[in-house]
Amino acid sequence: MHQKKFIVGVMGPGDHAQKKDVEAAYELGRRIAQEGWILLSGGRNSGVMDAVSRGAKSAGGLTIGIMPTKKRETISKYVDIAIITEMGSARNSINVLTSDVVAVCGMSAGTASEVALALKADKDIILINPEKNSTQFFKSLNKKKIHAAKDCGAAIVIIRQMLNNSLN
Amino acid sequence: MHQKKFIVGVMGPGDHAQKKDVEAAYELGRRIAQEGWILLSGGRNSGVMDAVSRGAKSAGGLTIGIMPTKKRETISKYVDIAIITEMGSARNSINVLTSDVVAVCGMSAGTASEVALALKADKDIILINPEKNSTQFFKSLNKKKIHAAKDCGAAIVIIRQMLNNSLN
Amino acid sequence: MHQKKFIVGVMGPGDHAQKKDVEAAYELGRRIAQEGWILLSGGRNSGVMDAVSRGAKSAGGLTIGIMPTKKRETISKYVDIAIITEMGSARNSINVLTSDVVAVCGMSAGTASEVALALKADKDIILINPEKNSTQFFKSLNKKKIHAAKDCGAAIVIIRQMLNNSLN
Amino acid sequence: MHQKKFIVGVMGPGDHAQKKDVEAAYELGRRIAQEGWILLSGGRNSGVMDAVSRGAKSAGGLTIGIMPTKKRETISKYVDIAIITEMGSARNSINVLTSDVVAVCGMSAGTASEVALALKADKDIILINPEKNSTQFFKSLNKKKIHAAKDCGAAIVIIRQMLNNSLN
Repeated sequence: MHQKKFIVGVMGPGDHAQKKDVEAAYELGRRIAQEGWILLSGGRNSGVMDAVSRGAKSAGGLTIGIMPTKKRETISKYVDIAIITEMGSARNSINVLTSDVVAVCGMSAGTASEVALALKADKDIILINPEKNSTQFFKSLNKKKIHAAKDCGAAIVIIRQMLNNSLN
Repeated sequence: MHQKKFIVGVMGPGDHAQKKDVEAAYELGRRIAQEGWILLSGGRNSGVMDAVSRGAKSAGGLTIGIMPTKKRETISKYVDIAIITEMGSARNSINVLTSDVVAVCGMSAGTASEVALALKADKDIILINPEKNSTQFFKSLNKKKIHAAKDCGAAIVIIRQMLNNSLN
Repeated sequence: MHQKKFIVGVMGPGDHAQKKDVEAAYELGRRIAQEGWILLSGGRNSGVMDAVSRGAKSAGGLTIGIMPTKKRETISKYVDIAIITEMGSARNSINVLTSDVVAVCGMSAGTASEVALALKADKDIILINPEKNSTQFFKSLNKKKIHAAKDCGAAIVIIRQMLNNSLN
Repeated sequence: MHQKKFIVGVMGPGDHAQKKDVEAAYELGRRIAQEGWILLSGGRNSGVMDAVSRGAKSAGGLTIGIMPTKKRETISKYVDIAIITEMGSARNSINVLTSDVVAVCGMSAGTASEVALALKADKDIILINPEKNSTQFFKSLNKKKIHAAKDCGAAIVIIRQMLNNSLN
C-alpha cells in the first residue's frame, strides 16, 4: 500500500506576527523539511506563514499553502503548491483537516480558530512557547490533544514520537 | 432604503452541552424573538443549537440554521430556514459572518472556533456566564470585542445598546 | 412535526443578464411569493438575482440571498436575509443544496455550474424558456430531473405538481 | 523569483465513468507526469480521479487530490498529497481555481460543474474526445476558453502551447 506523505501544518499570526514567532516559524520550517515531512501553511506572504515556508525551502522541503483568496500576488514565494480556495477564513478548516499534526507559533484570532478547529477534528496540536492563558484555555477544551513545547526542537521530538506511535 | 433585519447568532456546544447552557440558550432564544430579532444557529437538533431555536419559536420568532451536513433528519425541528452547506466545520465561518452580533452559551472546541472566527471578522461577541479562562483568553486576543454578561437579560441589554449605537 | 417552509432557488446570470431574463426573473419572483414559498437567490444587486428578489418583495414574499462575498454594498436591497459565505463561487453549492427545487432564467458559466451542482445533488431543475443546446446538454446528463418550461406560469405549475407529489 | 510549479487539473466522472474515459485518464496522467507538470484531481479512488493519478504515478509524477470528504479510505492510493476539504461538491471550486489549466475526460453532473466553474474563473479548458452537445453547450458560454482535443496527445500539445504563450 502506498504510504501518504506526512504533513505538518504550522499555524500562526500573519500580518501582526511578533518577531519571536516569525523566528521560531523559520526554524520550525527548516527542521520539518530536514525530517522529510511536508509543510502546510496558510500560504500567504506574511508573518508565520511566510517564515515557516521560507525555513522549509532553506532545507529543500516541499511546501503547501492553502490560500484564502485567489490573489496570486499574496502567495508566499516559498510555497511550492498553492491551493486556491477563495474562501476566506473558511479555509482554516481545510488547513487543519489536511494536516496530520498541527504546530503553532504565536497566537491571534485566526490562529485560535485553527487550534479550535483542529481540536474539533481530533488532531494533536503542539503550542510552541505559548502564553499561559492559551495553554490553560485550550487544555480546558481537551487536555489530551494539547501539547506545549518550549521550543522548535522540543516540538520536533513530540511529532517524531507521535509518528512512531501511529506507525506501531 | 430597505433595512436588513437584525440577526443574532447564538453559538454553543452541541452533543456535549451542559444542562445550564441548554437552559440559558432556551431563555436567550425566547428573548431574542421578543425583541423582533432573527435568530441564527448551527441548525442541528442538539444542545444549544436546538434549545435556542426552540426558545425563539416559543415566542414566535424566525429561526435560521446553518447546517454542516445535508442530513435532513439532523435539522432542529425549531429551525424555519435551514441553509444546507454540507461543509462540516467550515460552515462555522458562515455562522459568524452572517450574524450582526454573536452570543455564546457554554464552550467547546466548535464554539471556540466560532468565537475566534467572529473576532477575526471583527464582530462583537457576548459570552454569557463564561468560565474565567475563556474570558481571559479571548480578551487577550481582542479586549474591545469580547463582552461578558452574567445572564441572558444582561446579554440582551448589551445587544440593544450595540444596535442603538449602530443606528445613531 | 414542524413543516419546513418550501424554498425555491432561482438562478441566472448576474452582471451580463439579458433584458428578457431579468423580466422573467421579476415575474417569477412575484409568483413564487404569491404561492407563499420562500425565494432563494445568489443575493447580489445584479441581474437575475436582484430582479427575482425585487419581484418577490413586490408580492410581500420572504427573500434569502446567499452572498459570495462579505461586501455589504453588493447585497440586493430586496434580500431580507443575507447569508454571508465569503466563498466566491463555492457558494453555488449552498444555493442548490438549500433549495427544494431550482428554477433557471437565462444561462451563464455561473448558472451552468448551479444547474450541474443541482443535478449532482439530485434536485429537480426547471429551465425557463431555455436555449435548445442548454436543454439538450443537461438532459444528456439526467433526463428525468431537467424540466423545460415555456414561461414563468408554466414553471409555477410544474413546481406546484412537485410539491403536491412530495406531500402525497 | 521562485517559479510556481505548473498544475494541470484533470476532471471526469467518478463512480459512473466509462471504460474509454478511464483509459484516456490513465494515459493523460502518464503524459502530464512525463512533462514534469503536477497533476491535480478530485482525489477519490474512483473513475477518472483514480485512473489519472495512477497514470501520473506510473511515470513518477507528483499527484494532488482535493478530497470532498474526510473519509481516508476513499482517497486514491495514487494520490501523494490529499487536501481534505470535507466540503462535498463545493470543493469543485477549489479544483479549478488551483489548476493552471483544466482537462476533461468524459462528462457527468459533477464534471459539468467543474467545467462551468472553470469558465467562471476564466481558465482554459480542454475537452478530450467530447460529445458534440458538450462542446456546443460550453462553447455557447465562452467560445475562446473551450478547446476540443481528439485525444490525450492533442491535449498535451495544446497545454504546451498555452504554457509557452504564458511564459513569453
